[in-house]
Amino acid sequence: MKVALLQTAGTGSVSGNLDLLEAKAAEASAQGARLLIAPEMFLTGYNIGDRTEALAEAVDGPSADRAAEIAARFGLALLYGFPEAAGGAVYNAALFVERDGTRSVYRKTHLFGAGERTHFARGPERPPLLDLDGLKVGLLICYDVEFPEAVRALAEAGADLVAVPTALMAPYDIVAETVVPTRAYESGIFVAYVNRVGSESDLTYVGRSALVGPDGIALCRADDRSEALMIAEIDRQAIARLREINPYLADLRRDLYS
Amino acid sequence: MKVALLQTAGTGSVSGNLDLLEAKAAEASAQGARLLIAPEMFLTGYNIGDRTEALAEAVDGPSADRAAEIAARFGLALLYGFPEAAGGAVYNAALFVERDGTRSVYRKTHLFGAGERTHFARGPERPPLLDLDGLKVGLLICYDVEFPEAVRALAEAGADLVAVPTALMAPYDIVAETVVPTRAYESGIFVAYVNRVGSESDLTYVGRSALVGPDGIALCRADDRSEALMIAEIDRQAIARLREINPYLADLRRDLYS
Repeated sequence: MKVALLQTAGTGSVSGNLDLLEAKAAEASAQGARLLIAPEMFLTGYNIGDRTEALAEAVDGPSADRAAEIAARFGLALLYGFPEAAGGAVYNAALFVERDGTRSVYRKTHLFGAGERTHFARGPERPPLLDLDGLKVGLLICYDVEFPEAVRALAEAGADLVAVPTALMAPYDIVAETVVPTRAYESGIFVAYVNRVGSESDLTYVGRSALVGPDGIALCRADDRSEALMIAEIDRQAIARLREINPYLADLRRDLYS
Repeated sequence: MKVALLQTAGTGSVSGNLDLLEAKAAEASAQGARLLIAPEMFLTGYNIGDRTEALAEAVDGPSADRAAEIAARFGLALLYGFPEAAGGAVYNAALFVERDGTRSVYRKTHLFGAGERTHFARGPERPPLLDLDGLKVGLLICYDVEFPEAVRALAEAGADLVAVPTALMAPYDIVAETVVPTRAYESGIFVAYVNRVGSESDLTYVGRSALVGPDGIALCRADDRSEALMIAEIDRQAIARLREINPYLADLRRDLYS
């Protein structure tokens, strides 16, 4: 299965970002991608401060409706970050929209720093595990993936791919370069880490989006500053091969570490 | 506190390895080290096949006695790997000998591959947490450290340093280069990863021993083939500093991931 990773600074407006999503969905679809992944808070920008609440939308809001139209039109699934309004709260969320219109949402459980804690409620649940033509896809957002527990739980539940919209800023390059490959390697799964670039006031994002395979090697990796649409192939058989070489899930001493 | 990491192929004999330990303890002590760490199965060699049982010794056996003399004479603690005979079983173990004669043993819990499972019993317990002049030291052996659960449990118990005698062979360089730095970073601790070099029949060890700080950066790293004695400083205040920047232990959602 081909997946597309969109590394971008966004356009500065919701409508502009939806136009961008449509253009990149067209490109990704033309190259055979079954899933297009965009960064954390792709819809609105990440560092939007007090505008967060006003820009928050529901899963059945107008932006999600337009995303569903794009997914249907180009015949692929979309995953992107947005501020979600739900039950009187605002979450740092990721929306997964299938081409048949099915919508799933994940609400970030590990909020990062005072800024996020000011504007977002903590997601109350572990992420969902979705099925995409038989590929099991787990969702995390940014800081979540830095916790081995979060990725391990998805791998134990059967995830083949963990898809991670992110907004990784300087000086945390080590997360993209070292931590994310370790997550893929230590559980024998694919990890798609899709970051922002450019700056938003005091934050500079460091790009380096990558699809990392179960051997811990990046199948593709973007640089630290460029807009990029990367298409890469997920070979599920690589998971079985690597788990024979590195049987971490089989060898873990659950009797000692439950 | 200064610690010394001995990357070595060993000498091929137990008596030769004890002589080597003595010489390196003298060097390390002269440079102010408080702890000297040697690789997995340092005492006997790692890939010793059917000789494992015959070479196994008890924690109060003659080799451990000599190590205790060395520790006392040079005024530092020693940690090295050896095949331990205990209760009718043989373990892939690490002996920690303090300069006052105190001995602690850790028995590897995650055995690697068919070779180890043929010759060793699985360690039945989590590793001990030792006190070295106030520094809390956790012990793991080789494959153990590749499981995030093992390092996290030690960090949650209060470890400042996780010391890891290892015998990492080709083609697993990614463990030394990527996984070990991640372990230090994701829990904000020091990790001393001390490997063999050279070849033993069909195995070639890849060196790259390192002391990695809580920022995930190696304070020192050896190459992939040389004998090396590296002395590096553990600054406990770096742990507190890094945990303010990366509060992983504080931020982990234990309500979701227990």
